[in-house]
Amino acid sequence: MYPKPIKDFIDNFSKLPGVGPRQAARLAFWLLNGEKNIRENLKKSLEGLGSEIGICPICFFTVEKRDKGTRDGSMHRQSRHGDDKCHFCDNPGRDHKTICVVEKETDLATIEKSGNYKGLYHVLGGLFSALDTAIPKNLKMPELISRLEENKKNASKGVKEIILALSPTHEGDLTAHYLERLLKPLKIKITRIGRGLPYGADVEFADAQTLSGALDSRKEIK
Amino acid sequence: MYPKPIKDFIDNFSKLPGVGPRQAARLAFWLLNGEKNIRENLKKSLEGLGSEIGICPICFFTVEKRDKGTRDGSMHRQSRHGDDKCHFCDNPGRDHKTICVVEKETDLATIEKSGNYKGLYHVLGGLFSALDTAIPKNLKMPELISRLEENKKNASKGVKEIILALSPTHEGDLTAHYLERLLKPLKIKITRIGRGLPYGADVEFADAQTLSGALDSRKEIK
Repeated sequence: MYPKPIKDFIDNFSKLPGVGPRQAARLAFWLLNGEKNIRENLKKSLEGLGSEIGICPICFFTVEKRDKGTRDGSMHRQSRHGDDKCHFCDNPGRDHKTICVVEKETDLATIEKSGNYKGLYHVLGGLFSALDTAIPKNLKMPELISRLEENKKNASKGVKEIILALSPTHEGDLTAHYLERLLKPLKIKITRIGRGLPYGADVEFADAQTLSGALDSRKEIK
Repeated sequence: MYPKPIKDFIDNFSKLPGVGPRQAARLAFWLLNGEKNIRENLKKSLEGLGSEIGICPICFFTVEKRDKGTRDGSMHRQSRHGDDKCHFCDNPGRDHKTICVVEKETDLATIEKSGNYKGLYHVLGGLFSALDTAIPKNLKMPELISRLEENKKNASKGVKEIILALSPTHEGDLTAHYLERLLKPLKIKITRIGRGLPYGADVEFADAQTLSGALDSRKEIK
């Protein structure tokens, strides 16, 4: 039906999460009829992900590489000790005694944008699966433990609180429970972000789990 | 917040139609944590749009270029007489006496997939705007007229029917009315695709315009 380069484009772009073949087809013709530099910029952006992005060896957030050398590109969340620290871990203005554990980078961005949190982060890189009972191997849990143990040796840097900012889903709960057990021996305060009704919600339409979470985390008005 | 290469990626990808900054951010991290060859394939697909796609000089559908030379890439729907005919215009098995006028390539694909139409096409490349009274300059209307006049000289190729397969929207109606007036002097039968309720719809929930269209295009049961 379509010429081969367009078919290839649709095949490749519809593999992206949230992009279906119809949207991919619309994108193809939109780009085809648009300026060349739009396509050039997209190509450069894809290139940039491969060669200019490193991973912070402490919290596993992304960091811009200073020497933009070539490398294999696929990073699979390996800790690369050659990479620089991110602008959180490297910032003495942040509270280094609090670590907020998040599932993924975009969660970190949402917390950061909310503007209230000034501590450090730890990007787990995923959650436990509700269907698979095995403990996922790629989660940065051992790295969190060794980060905390490393900190403990240095009295001035000791971490005082770990905030588990995982989504209140079955997967988030599984992961949080496992982390709680894992972190307990370190004797550091562990908290989890509050549950309740989101701002603007109507009690009438709240589901049972949200409401019981809201009742559990009720606060005394003083 | 994000390192610059990721910020650039989000900026560039959220310019695409139907892609917002949040989806662009998710795409960036999905690609970053995925295989390198996924990014490579996307880059090649973008490249392919620039250098391997031509435009049929007759109906303005896309066509794969045989010599994949370099060129400026941005085509702006110029008729390129150097490009080959598409596989509709070049196919003697199609009915060359019927031309179906469509707004865009993806509309053509939907009609073609429905499997009932065996004639040729003409891709207008847009519709009149409901807000702007000027006649859009980039629509391939003059090209349709000269295509039909050219055909008329050759008695064996004379076109017998033009089907206007434009969406039943205000923009589609404006464009169809203008085309009707433009094509009338050529004395070729002009039709427009039927209006009515889509398959599976419920009369109860049909809007007034759809219902009056359905009544207007009622058919006698024999």
